[in-house]
Amino acid sequence: MDKNLLLIQCRDKVGLVSSISHIISKFNCNITSMREFVDEPSKRFFTRVEFSGTIADERILLDDLLSVLPQDSKIKINPKREKRIVVLVTKEYHCLGDILTRHFFQSLHAEVCAVIGNHDVLQKFAESFSLPYHYVSHENKTKELFEGELKDIINVYLPDYIILAKFMRILSPDFIASFSDKIINIHHSFLPAFIGANPYRKAFERGVKLIGATAHFVTNDLDEGPIIAQQTIHVNHTFTVSDMVTAGKEIETAVLSKAMQLVFQDRVFISGNKTIVFE
Amino acid sequence: MDKNLLLIQCRDKVGLVSSISHIISKFNCNITSMREFVDEPSKRFFTRVEFSGTIADERILLDDLLSVLPQDSKIKINPKREKRIVVLVTKEYHCLGDILTRHFFQSLHAEVCAVIGNHDVLQKFAESFSLPYHYVSHENKTKELFEGELKDIINVYLPDYIILAKFMRILSPDFIASFSDKIINIHHSFLPAFIGANPYRKAFERGVKLIGATAHFVTNDLDEGPIIAQQTIHVNHTFTVSDMVTAGKEIETAVLSKAMQLVFQDRVFISGNKTIVFE
Amino acid sequence: MDKNLLLIQCRDKVGLVSSISHIISKFNCNITSMREFVDEPSKRFFTRVEFSGTIADERILLDDLLSVLPQDSKIKINPKREKRIVVLVTKEYHCLGDILTRHFFQSLHAEVCAVIGNHDVLQKFAESFSLPYHYVSHENKTKELFEGELKDIINVYLPDYIILAKFMRILSPDFIASFSDKIINIHHSFLPAFIGANPYRKAFERGVKLIGATAHFVTNDLDEGPIIAQQTIHVNHTFTVSDMVTAGKEIETAVLSKAMQLVFQDRVFISGNKTIVFE
Amino acid sequence: MDKNLLLIQCRDKVGLVSSISHIISKFNCNITSMREFVDEPSKRFFTRVEFSGTIADERILLDDLLSVLPQDSKIKINPKREKRIVVLVTKEYHCLGDILTRHFFQSLHAEVCAVIGNHDVLQKFAESFSLPYHYVSHENKTKELFEGELKDIINVYLPDYIILAKFMRILSPDFIASFSDKIINIHHSFLPAFIGANPYRKAFERGVKLIGATAHFVTNDLDEGPIIAQQTIHVNHTFTVSDMVTAGKEIETAVLSKAMQLVFQDRVFISGNKTIVFE
Repeated sequence: MDKNLLLIQCRDKVGLVSSISHIISKFNCNITSMREFVDEPSKRFFTRVEFSGTIADERILLDDLLSVLPQDSKIKINPKREKRIVVLVTKEYHCLGDILTRHFFQSLHAEVCAVIGNHDVLQKFAESFSLPYHYVSHENKTKELFEGELKDIINVYLPDYIILAKFMRILSPDFIASFSDKIINIHHSFLPAFIGANPYRKAFERGVKLIGATAHFVTNDLDEGPIIAQQTIHVNHTFTVSDMVTAGKEIETAVLSKAMQLVFQDRVFISGNKTIVFE
Repeated sequence: MDKNLLLIQCRDKVGLVSSISHIISKFNCNITSMREFVDEPSKRFFTRVEFSGTIADERILLDDLLSVLPQDSKIKINPKREKRIVVLVTKEYHCLGDILTRHFFQSLHAEVCAVIGNHDVLQKFAESFSLPYHYVSHENKTKELFEGELKDIINVYLPDYIILAKFMRILSPDFIASFSDKIINIHHSFLPAFIGANPYRKAFERGVKLIGATAHFVTNDLDEGPIIAQQTIHVNHTFTVSDMVTAGKEIETAVLSKAMQLVFQDRVFISGNKTIVFE
Repeated sequence: MDKNLLLIQCRDKVGLVSSISHIISKFNCNITSMREFVDEPSKRFFTRVEFSGTIADERILLDDLLSVLPQDSKIKINPKREKRIVVLVTKEYHCLGDILTRHFFQSLHAEVCAVIGNHDVLQKFAESFSLPYHYVSHENKTKELFEGELKDIINVYLPDYIILAKFMRILSPDFIASFSDKIINIHHSFLPAFIGANPYRKAFERGVKLIGATAHFVTNDLDEGPIIAQQTIHVNHTFTVSDMVTAGKEIETAVLSKAMQLVFQDRVFISGNKTIVFE
Repeated sequence: MDKNLLLIQCRDKVGLVSSISHIISKFNCNITSMREFVDEPSKRFFTRVEFSGTIADERILLDDLLSVLPQDSKIKINPKREKRIVVLVTKEYHCLGDILTRHFFQSLHAEVCAVIGNHDVLQKFAESFSLPYHYVSHENKTKELFEGELKDIINVYLPDYIILAKFMRILSPDFIASFSDKIINIHHSFLPAFIGANPYRKAFERGVKLIGATAHFVTNDLDEGPIIAQQTIHVNHTFTVSDMVTAGKEIETAVLSKAMQLVFQDRVFISGNKTIVFE
């Protein structure tokens, strides 16, 4: 018996759960987990269904679903299990170290196709894992040129997701638009507090008692995309900016890891500027 | 449009979600939230369905469900919103204070029918909320007699749940059996660590760095019933036993409150010695 | 043997710990806990010393300390154990309920002198605890007049601290200046995120995965005073604004309670726009 | 100006803080942080002092301290900053991955001298970091022989600490005694809950709502040494044993990392079966 996964988003209407579950039962399959959510403001319906059984021809299932679902429905049947990712970095290693270690032992639920850095600091580390590292400096060139070089490399690998694992360059709306809903960033603050540069310095100056990290999809506005996961930890008056940076790295790593796991297991829907996360 | 709630537990079989959701859609009702879980070891199916629409006659819905569900099914349609509870206490006030404050402002989702104490320390407090307080001393009488007196008082109020809000007497299996699946206790440790008496002293002596609290249904075995909610907080070497008791009260209050909220909203199923909690 | 408490803040210089501890030892007293912190940017020294032994005449100890400490030093010897507080409220009960319950059982480390509300919603509740409740409506009068009435009542009680326990009026700089470093507020967000009104609505619209609460001293700028304590809890896409408000109340209560406990035990120093908290 | 560190433990008596701080001030050094604790049951005094200034001859400072401290005092002046460690593993990679990544980027505060495994699963990984990996199988030999081989290898490296990073063999009292107060273990449960083998299976069967991890020094009794750090995370009824294992790895990694950081920075004293941790 196979384990199958079905993802649907569409306009809400009466009887969707019944229609969908009825079709699955017609295939003699058994629903082992069904999660659904209706976003009231937008009247959109989202569901994630795990079911066991054999689907001989996925096109028949798709046609059956299309026949009962609203016209605008987006349906995914058994999306690929192992996503392809490209990781962009600058100099900080903590997120990359976590990603490559999990990748080495096949627990990332994704294939790391390549690492791209705008510095070469992490090259030796990536290569010790036998992964291609592309060093693309941003210096002495326009942003357009720099991003063109990035795009050319990324496109070779046909990634499902691009992970900004402490990539410290701001990407242009054009670049982001080329990879719509595919770029995941880890931001070193509890958004929307301390948007922009130097969040730990701002946190220090404000005298906060918690610092945080936020993993989010990247959209046109800086630090403004749909949030996937967030976490905070306690700090106190003895923390210097540097101590906060150090402490923050632990949760940056943890939050990005959590977000990737959720996304790679197809547990995250994007709905406007929010995410729906079926944990 | 009414908001309805349906709770079902039964033997698992193919097509349950489809059958149940189909029946609801026949009543022209819309499922707004559906949670289900199959406990693999016991092959039991549990579901909690929120749906909007009008059910003119609940008996017809019940008959429709019975006609498709396995014979052993337990079904609840629109269980009563406001549960009746009796609270048992000894001398500590923190959980009772929280319960009575929420009750006063109608945010407990339950009606506190009475407070029973084996000491009179909390009598004045309970009465300042205009609630009946029954002082039933356990002294100079057999446990059988003591529990008989408790039962007589409790039974007058026909409670849905009995809350042991830091009630420091061990109840007999007979007493517990009289109120099967109805007694909720807050235990002052992270079970199963430090079962039994003086958990904070044991925690102190062991030098732990976290202490916890556990809310659970009470069954025959001491501290052994199905766990509803648990939480921990950090302690350190400067904590005396008394400091741990003080710190522990905060999470005891929080955990019991959380557990009551989950149970009173019919989000908790008991499955053997475990709970299924649809948060 | 008495337990004594000494609080000092002054300009930093070499040998302060030695000088202070030497004087205490000359009184044949034993330091049981000594916490100190030097704020590097301002070069200010802060210490909190618990010591056991008998101080027959505190003026002699004070003179000895003054003779070795820098001229600008602020010294407190055995500040009073039980602070006097006045609590300001509007309509929400959760923080007040917690305060009055702890007060009733003498675990607040403060005496609640009175409750003042700009609505009468909480009057019956406060009075059930036999506490004076002053209903001072803000309607149909200028802010100046309203605050004048508040001040007149507050000043009768000579409070050490004024607790804004979900008091939903913005106080003028003049009012705040009258009670400098004495006003503690609970803000219903993780500052500095969502400054100002309706933080839960803003959090909902932003799609955050955590919400928070902040207890802080009140200064001239709205939501900008020194932070004493903060906490966050997880939320998800299923939370409506109203669900966030409900969930937020739990941590608002917990954070304000924590902050009061720290302040009332003289564990908090204010240093510019930050606090130093010797937990 | 140098940063110095002084660690003292001794019998408690009046005036210790004064004596110690006086000696430091005589060297014209400035105390930047001083933490002290008196363990009441054992009447032992512990202090950790950070001070800036130049100590030309540490022996003179030592002699001065010895002249005022009780005879049984243990004093460490400027213990070495970078500890030497040997890491013992079996098959699980998560803790080792974290250790080697931090080591690679010099943020572990320790030098990893070697990795020893009783399986060869992690050999390739360790070697990709250019570290010696010793594969010492426990099969087909007595425990005595196996431990003898371990000891011979460990002793070559003269480590300050031996890290059991998911090393799944129980070590004999003799082996442990050879490295007294030097062995740090990560236990995959919230001790003292679920002592011994298969804690996640026990946690699953008990239906707990939290699982935890514990880092501790290893003493003769299984899972019974002084606890350094602990942490818990929420689980629910949907977690299989395997899901708990997966979730548990995250906190095992985090807790061991935290404990190592505390120990390597000389923030941890052992006092009987407890630790004193000056965070």
